[in-house]
Order: sequence, then structure tokens, then C-alpha cells
Amino acid sequence: MRCSILSIGDEIVGGMTIDTNSAYIAEAARSVGVDPVGGLSVADDEPAIERSLERALEDAEVVISTGGLGPTSDDLTTACVARLAGRELRLDDESLRRMEERFLARGGSMPVNNRKQAYFPEGSEIIPNARGTAPGFICPIERGGRTRHIICMPGVPHEMRAMVKETLVPWLAGRNPERRFASRIFSAAGVGESKLDELLAGVVSAEEARLAFRAAFPRLQARVTIWGAPGDDLEARLDAIEARVRERAGSYIYAVGDEGMEETVGRLLRERGLTVAVAESCTGGLIGHRLTDVAGSSAYFQLGIVAYSNGAKQSLLGVTEATLISHGAVSIETAEEMAEGARRAAGADLGLATTGIAGPGGGSEEKPVGTVCIGLAWEGGRWSRRLDLGAREREWIKAMTAQLALDRLRRHLIDPEGSARS
Amino acid sequence: MRCSILSIGDEIVGGMTIDTNSAYIAEAARSVGVDPVGGLSVADDEPAIERSLERALEDAEVVISTGGLGPTSDDLTTACVARLAGRELRLDDESLRRMEERFLARGGSMPVNNRKQAYFPEGSEIIPNARGTAPGFICPIERGGRTRHIICMPGVPHEMRAMVKETLVPWLAGRNPERRFASRIFSAAGVGESKLDELLAGVVSAEEARLAFRAAFPRLQARVTIWGAPGDDLEARLDAIEARVRERAGSYIYAVGDEGMEETVGRLLRERGLTVAVAESCTGGLIGHRLTDVAGSSAYFQLGIVAYSNGAKQSLLGVTEATLISHGAVSIETAEEMAEGARRAAGADLGLATTGIAGPGGGSEEKPVGTVCIGLAWEGGRWSRRLDLGAREREWIKAMTAQLALDRLRRHLIDPEGSARS
Repeated sequence: MRCSILSIGDEIVGGMTIDTNSAYIAEAARSVGVDPVGGLSVADDEPAIERSLERALEDAEVVISTGGLGPTSDDLTTACVARLAGRELRLDDESLRRMEERFLARGGSMPVNNRKQAYFPEGSEIIPNARGTAPGFICPIERGGRTRHIICMPGVPHEMRAMVKETLVPWLAGRNPERRFASRIFSAAGVGESKLDELLAGVVSAEEARLAFRAAFPRLQARVTIWGAPGDDLEARLDAIEARVRERAGSYIYAVGDEGMEETVGRLLRERGLTVAVAESCTGGLIGHRLTDVAGSSAYFQLGIVAYSNGAKQSLLGVTEATLISHGAVSIETAEEMAEGARRAAGADLGLATTGIAGPGGGSEEKPVGTVCIGLAWEGGRWSRRLDLGAREREWIKAMTAQLALDRLRRHLIDPEGSARS
Repeated sequence: MRCSILSIGDEIVGGMTIDTNSAYIAEAARSVGVDPVGGLSVADDEPAIERSLERALEDAEVVISTGGLGPTSDDLTTACVARLAGRELRLDDESLRRMEERFLARGGSMPVNNRKQAYFPEGSEIIPNARGTAPGFICPIERGGRTRHIICMPGVPHEMRAMVKETLVPWLAGRNPERRFASRIFSAAGVGESKLDELLAGVVSAEEARLAFRAAFPRLQARVTIWGAPGDDLEARLDAIEARVRERAGSYIYAVGDEGMEETVGRLLRERGLTVAVAESCTGGLIGHRLTDVAGSSAYFQLGIVAYSNGAKQSLLGVTEATLISHGAVSIETAEEMAEGARRAAGADLGLATTGIAGPGGGSEEKPVGTVCIGLAWEGGRWSRRLDLGAREREWIKAMTAQLALDRLRRHLIDPEGSARS
């Protein structure tokens, strides 16, 4: 089964909003073996929407659209679908009741133009919306002597995502009841996409699985999708594949699942009952920002010091003047003293530090832009490393340094002896 | 003139990569009065690419595509365009020479399969690529008795963007030599899109200008585009429109142009020769991260302290135990003491602080999730404010708090008396 993905809205076509919905839907569809054949975006214009829907129906058995389900006169999707399918619009009492309750719960009454959102093409399956007013729907439509389906969801990403998980994916999976799908994501760090591709080449055969990569810098993921008959033990097969993946690329895989490095590190710190303090120079606060993106991070993260100046490195982190003079602010010696200083200032178990040249200025022949040092300190030990990330953009260098520093912390948490040895 | 935008590549259709190119191209085209009518994405598959190109040509006089210009067998765009246009592929010696030089400059010789990238449909205008190997091209094609054009660029965003600025935009503008376009962007903070839309309603008439909004949270922009004959003083008309925009929404406009708040604040600090130190609790380092995203920020930013725990607030920022006990960590009193503490620790002119409940846990009836306090301290004065941002997602609360804190700093830099009064 194939699907075509349609994104409806002037803001998408005009470039005011980047379409993130289509990629999300494509990945979800692939996870149950439904291949996206292409995507279309179209403005809030009836003839254009109808033409795009017809094109999408030519390409695939299932058309999945987002947008155009709101209460205003610009919202045209439902009417267009009903017309193409030759079906009347019918009021769904249950949807109307839920929408009215939603407005009441927020202390208001429902504006009259929201009623429109409770009308659907006759014979549609309604997709409840737990997070907003507009329900979605699945409308059958006859084309080329076969029944095809148009699935409409709102364009608001978090509403759409909930519907995809709760309704779309099970519905798509149910269209092909003889086949089951399962997938596993491997989150990687410290390795580029082409290198990971090379390492994993041939780890699964095309007959048994599909391997796809997704790079959302600095996050890199490999996803393995397998299929089988109902009753097959897909999880056991994924476990066997995971073992092979780990054998080839284990040191780069920081998590199984769609997990950020900050979540992995947070989980490890929590499991071990340890705390960390951070001293940042070139990352400017990004490591603290990422650690505190995790709910409950106050249990293990108490202090970060963004010591951009040498003065701050000395007064707050206790980096010695001798170190700064003989090795410079960007050096493994300074990184180690910063890490130890942060640890001491916070009374934390671990200290993590970064110092480097994010550019575009500040580089020298000996220490060009992209030179960064990462330091780690713990009770009775220190570790540091100098890296050459190359003369990339400032934001890239910051992001990569933060990722590699957090990854170093992760490696230490898993294998403290490893840090002591290296 | 209208354009249709085509994005070519398995990674786009499969959802592994979010298509940011199409929105960028759409905005660039609109800035010279070329209306995007819609977009398509298509996999690396010859029949599918040709079908999509034909559809795009039905919709618009100009088709702008990205992707599929690489050296591998998956890269099919050029061959498809040549076939549809009925034109032979011809080697362009100049492009080949540049590519070979590029490889030589990097210390290698050009692999033989890169030669493919120097072939173009006969009669095409070649678009040089200053940042990568694959040049783009503009190929004329006859459809419906008229000459239409297919413009092909590589999918690598930074290569494509340079081509759009240097070649595509001037080329599109040149297709309509009787009309000139000019636009101005207003960057806003502290106001939502619908409120800004309301404030600016009617500020320009549809006959003289177009007004479009772009929300890339926490950044909000309004863009005014006007047009006229060659020789018209478009800048003077934009100045007049800017005056009207400022009259209605001036207090929310933090910059004219596509500028981040951190850049505006950095520029103001630099102009005034002032320095700032930051004390962050709920924003966790995000303010420091944003300030240091600006090259040269070390001139005015020297120190940030991420004081997540009460202990760190006391020991490093000098927040008193009495304040923490009587008002709590999330209070305007604590925010002011944090700001003053950061200022003092860094010996900076200004101190900026945030403390709040980013959730999902930690809220109370008196201080629910979304309660945040912003503090500012300067020589001889302090300012603070408590805000209720609502029970939104943790990341949203962090981002909005950082934006509003930086905006407060900006307002103070423009009008120090205003902070003292309020």
C-alpha cells in the first residue's frame, strides 16, 4: 500500500511556515509498511485543493492531508473532500457535543462558526481530537474502480501527531492484517551519517528489514523496520538485529529509541544517584540548556557556570593564572581545571567543561577555529581531550561540542574506569 | 508570474529530512512578486520526477526544483529535465574546469562520476555554485505554446541559498522589468501573531503592499512587500510604511530586518560600551547560549551562572536565605538579587536574571507552572516583573522566558529611565 501526503495552507505554500507535518506522517506510515510516494502542498483555494487531491489519488491508495479544518472561511478541506467523494456533509452530534464541552470547560460558549467543524462527509470515520477542536476524518472515495481513502487531520502539529499515533498508524496497520511491522531506533553520536551507513552496510538484508537514517543535527538515528505474519516474534528478531548493530557500531550508539543525549545522560545520572556541574566557555550555556530541557533535571544538575572571560575562569572556577599563561584558555589543562572548579563550586560528583574557538574570529595557526577541549573531573580523577572540529559555522561548532561533551559524560557514567585509563 | 516548487529526493519523501528549502524559495520568490502556487515532493525515480515536473509546468510558468544534481546514479534531475524539454545533454567546459579546480584545491583529483555534474540540457543558463560541486541551471521548455522555465538547484541548503540570492532572485526580478519590488521585515517580541495582525490591520492597503507574518517561535516577523515602476522611490515608501507600523506596534518591534533578539541586544550593548552578566534558573543556560550565538559576543558577555539549586543561588549569587524563605526561589525578590549577584560576580554593568517554574512538576496553586520572574540590575537600580505564561510545555516556557528577559534588557538599553520608573 502506498500513500500520498498533502499539506494544505497559504502559510505553507508561501513559505511563512516550514512543513514539518509531512515528514512526521511519512515516517509514521513507513513504520507500518505504507510507502509514501510523494507530497504536495497547496494554498487555501478550492480548485487548487481539489486538483491536488485528484493528483494525490492518482498516485496512491491513501491520501493523508493536514490543514484546512479550522472554523474560518479559509478552511476548505472538508467541503472539497465531500464534493470529490460525492458525499453530503452531515453533522456529527457526538463531535458537536465534545466541542461545546471543550469551550464550556474553558469558561466560554462555542462561537457559532465552530459548528462547521462538526460536519463530515457522509460515511466517514471520525478521528477524535483530544487536544483541539477540529476532529479529523477518514473518507472513502471511489477512483479507478477501487475504494481509496482520504484521511484529513488538522495542521496544528501537536494535534496531528496525537491523531497519527492514536488513530492513523493503527488504521494503516489494520489495512494489511496479514502483515505486522515493528521498528527499532538507534540514536548515535560521535559519528557521521556516511560513516554509520558504512558500518551498518549489510547488517540486515533487504528481504528481512529496512534501514533508514535520519539526521537532525546533532542527533543521528538509524531506524530498522521489519515485518512478518501475525504471531511472529518480531521483538526477538529486532533483538537479534540489535546485537549485530551493537557489534558493528556499539560505541556510537548512545540509546535505543528516539532519545536525546541529554535524556540518556539524565537517566544514567539518576540511576547512579550522581550529580553534575558544568563549566562552559565556547558552548556558552548550551549544555546547561540541554540538560535542563529534561523534566526533573534539578535532581542531578544544580549549577552551570558560563565562564566566557579569563577573569571568570579564574575567579569562579579557580583556573590558575599559570595554566592560562602557559597553555592558554583553549587547552586541555584549562578544560580540566574548569571541570574541577565547577565540581567543587557545586559540591557535585562530576564536573564537565568545554573551552574552544567557535569562530569566526579568534583562531590562530596553532589553534584554528574549531579547536575545542573537553574536560571531565570526578572525585580523584580527571580526563580531557582536544578535538579539531574544523572551520565550520559558529553554531555548528557549539552544537557539536555540546553533544560530544555530553557523550563523554555518558561514556564515563557507563565505564568510569575507561576515563581513568584513557 | 507564478512558480511551482519541487523538492526531489527519497530522504524528503520518506520523511528522514524535513524540507526547509521549499519555504526558503517561496519567500524569496514572493519578495520579487512571483507567487508560489504550490509545492511537490518526489522520490529519486525517473517516471515520478517527470510526472511531477509536468504537473508543476501545468500550474506555473516557472518551476523551481532542488535536489537530484549529485554525482551518483540516484541523481536523475538533469536527465529528466533534458528529456522533457527535448534537449540534448552537453558538457560545459567551464563548469568542468571549475569542478576539477575545486577538487585540486582540496588536494585530490576529481572522481570520474563527478563529470556528470558538468552536463546540462542544451540552451540552459548555468548557475555557478560557489559552495559545492553541482552547478544549477535554468532550462527553457515549451508547453501550451509558451516558453516556460525549469530552474534546478542542488538540495544542500547552504549551496541552494547562495544560488537563490545571487542568481534566482535577480533572474525572477528580471522577467518582469517594468516592476520593481522591495520589502522590509519587522521583528517583534512580546506579542502573539494574532494580536500583531490585529494591530497592523489596515496599515497598508492591498493595492500598495502585501503584509505577511512568519512565526518561528520565539521569533515573530511581519514582512511588508511593495512594488512600483523602475525609478520609483520604493525605499521612501517603505519608510512611510515603517512610520505607520511603528505608530501602531512600535513597542513590540525590536528590530527592522531579519535579526534575532540576541543580535539586537548585542548591538545595543556594543554601541553603548556596556557589559552584561546573566543568572539563569528556569532558562537553564539558554540566555547565555543565545547571547553567545553572536560572533564577537565576548566583548559584552563574560559570565553566566546557571543557578538551578537554592544553594547555588546563595553561594554564587548572594541571594539571601531570608529572601528565599520569605518569598521563595520563584519571586521578584529572588530575581532581583540574582541579577545583582551576577552583575557583582562579573563586575559587569548589567545583570539579567530568570527564575520560574518550567514544569511539568513543581507548580503550586499560588505559583503554577508557567510562573516566571525576570530581574534586571544596574548600577544604582533594579527592576523585576512576575509573569504568568500559562501551563505550556517546558521547552516553550524556557524559550519564551529567555526571549522576554532579553527583550527587557533591550528595553532598558534603549530607555534606562523607563526601567527605573516602572
